[in-house]
Order: sequence, then C-alpha cells, then structure tokens
Amino acid sequence: MGPHPAVAAIRLAVRRVLNDVLTQHARHAVGAGTRAPEPADGPPLVLVACSGGADSMALASALAFEAPKLSVRAGAVTVDHGLQAGSDLRAAEVAARLTALGLDPVETATVRVGRAGGPEAAARDARYGALDAAAERLGAAAVLLGHTRDDQAETVLLGLARGSGIRSLSGMAAVSGAAGRYRRPFLLIDRQTVRKACMVQSLPVWDDPHNADPAYTRSRLRHEGLPALEKALGKGVVEALARTAQLSRDDADALDAWAAEAAAGVRSADGGLECAKLYVLPPAVRRRVLRRAVIEAGSPAGSLFARHIEEVDRLITGWRGQRAINLPGRIQVLRQGGRLVIRQG
Amino acid sequence: MGPHPAVAAIRLAVRRVLNDVLTQHARHAVGAGTRAPEPADGPPLVLVACSGGADSMALASALAFEAPKLSVRAGAVTVDHGLQAGSDLRAAEVAARLTALGLDPVETATVRVGRAGGPEAAARDARYGALDAAAERLGAAAVLLGHTRDDQAETVLLGLARGSGIRSLSGMAAVSGAAGRYRRPFLLIDRQTVRKACMVQSLPVWDDPHNADPAYTRSRLRHEGLPALEKALGKGVVEALARTAQLSRDDADALDAWAAEAAAGVRSADGGLECAKLYVLPPAVRRRVLRRAVIEAGSPAGSLFARHIEEVDRLITGWRGQRAINLPGRIQVLRQGGRLVIRQG
Repeated sequence: MGPHPAVAAIRLAVRRVLNDVLTQHARHAVGAGTRAPEPADGPPLVLVACSGGADSMALASALAFEAPKLSVRAGAVTVDHGLQAGSDLRAAEVAARLTALGLDPVETATVRVGRAGGPEAAARDARYGALDAAAERLGAAAVLLGHTRDDQAETVLLGLARGSGIRSLSGMAAVSGAAGRYRRPFLLIDRQTVRKACMVQSLPVWDDPHNADPAYTRSRLRHEGLPALEKALGKGVVEALARTAQLSRDDADALDAWAAEAAAGVRSADGGLECAKLYVLPPAVRRRVLRRAVIEAGSPAGSLFARHIEEVDRLITGWRGQRAINLPGRIQVLRQGGRLVIRQG
Repeated sequence: MGPHPAVAAIRLAVRRVLNDVLTQHARHAVGAGTRAPEPADGPPLVLVACSGGADSMALASALAFEAPKLSVRAGAVTVDHGLQAGSDLRAAEVAARLTALGLDPVETATVRVGRAGGPEAAARDARYGALDAAAERLGAAAVLLGHTRDDQAETVLLGLARGSGIRSLSGMAAVSGAAGRYRRPFLLIDRQTVRKACMVQSLPVWDDPHNADPAYTRSRLRHEGLPALEKALGKGVVEALARTAQLSRDDADALDAWAAEAAAGVRSADGGLECAKLYVLPPAVRRRVLRRAVIEAGSPAGSLFARHIEEVDRLITGWRGQRAINLPGRIQVLRQGGRLVIRQG
C-alpha cells in the first residue's frame, strides 16, 4: 500500500523541485565561467524554511523523505521573530521536531523585526534576511518555502488591491531570489491537501496566532474576504486566482522585454527620448518605457504609481504645453522641442 | 449657484462623451471612403439605454441636459425583458419618465430572453440585440450605457473567477461595439455619486429586484463578495479594480498585436507552424499565437480554455513524442517533423 494521496502529492511536488535543483547543481559543477551559489563538490544541501506551521512542517517531512533517495543533503532553518513571549522556546521546539525528522543541519535564526512598510512587510524582510544569511553560510543550493495555492490566491488579491497592473497580480514565483535560491514546491497544491498530509503523518504543527489575527490584512483576507468571494463566485476562485498569477507573470515578463527593446529605439543620438517615436508605441509598452526611464533617472520604483506615469504619458499623447511634472525622488519630467527631458531637481 | 457636485460630475462625464461623438460624427461627414454608421447630414442622434434604475436614469437626465447645448438630438430606449409580471407597465412608465425629461424619440423594445449561457448572459444578449436594432433603425450615432465604476469592479472580479488571463480582467470598455456605438460615460464614476445625482434631482428610480437576488452571481458579488473584500483590503478596492481593468486592457491589446505580428513570422513557406520559431517566442506571446491558430482552424473561442493551450504549448516546450491533442470543435493538433499540424477531425 502506498502513502496517503495527500502525502504522495506533497512528496511528488518536492521530488520535482529536488530534481530541478540537482540539474542546476550539476550544470554549475561542470560550467566553467558560471557563478555557483554553493560549493559544487559533493551533494547539494537543500534547506526548508520552517515556522512549525502545517504548510512548512509538511514541506519539511517531504524533504526529509525525498532527499536521501536523491542523495541530496536536507537541512532546515526556523526563524524566531521575537514578536511573542516565549517565541524562543517555540523556535527551539520546532528545531527539535525538524531534527527528529532527520534533517541536518537545523538552525534557529533570531531576528529583530523593524517597522518599515508595516508589520507584515517588516517581518517578511527580517525573515528573508535571516534565510539569505543562513543559505550563504551553509552553502545551500536552495531554500524551500511552504507557500500553497491558497497563499498564492491571497497574494493575487493583495496585488489587485494595489491596482497597479498585471505585475502586481503575478503573485509569488515558483523560483525566485538570487540565483533562483527560493523554491515553492506547493504553489499549485491547496492548503487542505497539505494539512491533510500533516494529519495522516501525525506531524505536530503549530498554528501561528498571527494567521487568525484580524489586525493583519492577509488574515482578514483569508478568513473573511476569500470565503465571501468563494461564496459569491464559486469554489474555483482559489484555482482561478493562482492561474491568473501564472498568466499575468508571463504577460508582464513579455511586456517588460518589449519595453526594454523599445526603450533603445526611442532614444535620439544624444540620448533624449523622442516624443514622436514614443507616440506610435502601444500604450502598454510606452508606459513601461516611461516608467523605466523615470526609475533610471532616480525615482524610487516603490513610490511611483500608475497615476504618475499616466501624467508623464499625457506629455506624449495629450500635449497642450503642460509644465514640468514632479515625480517622487525629486525627478522632473518636461517636454522640450519634441523630446522628453528627465532630470533630478 | 451651480448644480450639486454629483450632478456636475455626471453632466461633465456625458459632455465629454458627446464632444467625442460629435468629433467622430464630423469626421464621418467629411470623410469620403469611411463607412458612416448614421446619416451624416443634420445633428447626430444619441440614445441612452435606460432600465429606469438609478444609474441609467441619472445618465438620461444628464443627456437631456447636455445634448441641446451641443446641438445633439437625444433619445432613449428602454428594454422590456418580459421576465416579471407587469414588466410591460413598468417599461411604459420608464418611457413616460424619459419623455418627461425631454428625450425624443423614446422607444420601448420588448425582447424574449432565451436560455443560452445562463440567465444573466441570455438577458444581456437579448438586450444588446434590441439596442443594436433600435440604433440601426433610428440611425443613432451612439448609445450611452449607465455602467459605473462599481459595475466595472464587479466585472473584473467575474473575469478573475474565470482565471483565463488578463483579457478577462479588462472589464468593460469605455467605447465598444460596431463602429464604437456603445459608450459608458460613468465608467470612472462611483455608484454612490450617480445615486446622489438622482436624489438631488428628485428623479424617480426603480430598483430592479434582480439586482438584489442572490440567485444571480453579480448580485451576490455586489452585496456580499465585494463588501467583504473591501472590509479585508480597504475602501480603495473598487477603484483599484477599475484601474486594473484599464491597465489589463492595454496590456492585452499590446500582446495581441505582438502575437498577430509573430504569427506571420513562425509560418514556413507552406503555411505550417515551425516549432523552432515558436520555441524562442516569450511564453505569453507563443500561447497567444497558438490560440489564434487553433481558433482560425475552427475551434470555438468560448470553449477554448487556458489548459487546452498549455497542452498544445507542451508540444513545443516539452516535446517527448506526445500523441495528437484533441481540442473543442473537433480540432486536432499534432507535431510532425518539427511542424505543428492543426486539422479538423
């Protein structure tokens, strides 16, 4: 008798990612001029980032099961955010469970969460900082993250709420970070399957109280927004959102590539942006070219909204002698003799 | 003292659209070879499609106010869907109110709603059929529709639930239909403003019971889904969704244009699709090229889902000797000697 279908599903997902990591590792080992993120001699080390919650405990269990069969070394990192009393004990307990699964090394990273960008963003920044540091120090070929399809759906809705276009709808990537360090094997698996896999394997899991705290946007979305949307639109919403993420990512990549190519073509010999050449581009491409140019001139990408770019775009498509436009980062854009001039004020 | 800000807002929105219609009308009048959708002599006729609900009554009031000032003739059509007892009396009452606003002609169109595509789609098809017929018969230059920013947000969420990519996220266009007949002046105005404009003008309005009927997906979305999403994500959700619609539309247009161009480049001399040339296209463009080719071969666009195209795409990107793929419309796609063969079985 084989494993429970839920356990089979999570193991298959991890196996696929490990095979991919091995292929990449072998390429680095033979490649001469390529920069290897890990020492290419010996079997690669793959880490799982584990909070002790169901998703990442399931991931840890699948990694512990699959890694030895593929001659991959499997370790784990758990991050103590220090946000709750006793979080250090909790982290030690999680580490003990990870060791019991057969993972080695198992590290506990203690971080200080700042305030920049709100509580969720600050915790995330601190967490990835610690994971990056651990991966570097241990020479890990990859770090696995337990995000599920449901997390992906939530991320798409959070992006939708920004209303800043398809890049923000593209959710989390299956592979991300420097040299593709982060991998998300469960991105197409629903949360219920992952939790089921924990249950049938009798894995002790910890429910992070933050996940149910209505002070957090994601928590409100998970417990109220998404269920209400499912009630109105039907059960397929999570899957549809996850598919939207993938399609949007590909679309955004293609348009960015087009814009990068077009950006070279609209420059005059002296490097100015020619309005007539910008005018004939499709609006979606023109706005991306303008956005790139403004960011290159020093405007911070995070403060640059769709409405800013639209205002710059009107210098091209609705020219009636407008004055210079002020953008974040003390950037000014003005039209002069059929050219756009972008300068830091 | 000027009008109430809400009334000023709806009038401005209508005035802008009328000016645009006039510009187009004048172009048709002088243009020699262009096909004019209306007799180009005399002032153009603009119709409002009016259900008697707040949104379209507000639109009718603004049209009645603005049209004379721009020498535009203003008429109205109200559609009796025949779905409720007494709907004919209701339609006659709405027509009387429209006449009282000074609109002329005012027509009542009685339609038979079929069943194809579910109750909402069937009613919509019947309605647009009647509006098209009325516009043709009366030689109207444009038909105004009362969709608000809130309707747009709902449409984006409905598209999101399909999970079929950014085209389905692009909502309703400000200008659509044959020769740009349909115009939506309120697409950037929120429902609350439009309702306020009815109230301060003491316009009697009718609340369609369908709008509150939880049997309708859109109604559930309006009364439960969207409010829950706003509660989770904040009040800006409707605006963000409407902005997403516009950005997605431009992005989808640009990618469709790219795909149309790329489609010509991947054909061999005998018209076959060359896999090697398809392979190097960005995934977003390649999938659009494949979708176009399959539709051209006779597969019905409405039955063709993202997963179908993904399967065809794997003939290019994951070739391991797959068998022919069966698609809706008895279309078969197979790979043969480095070419894709698309045929009707």
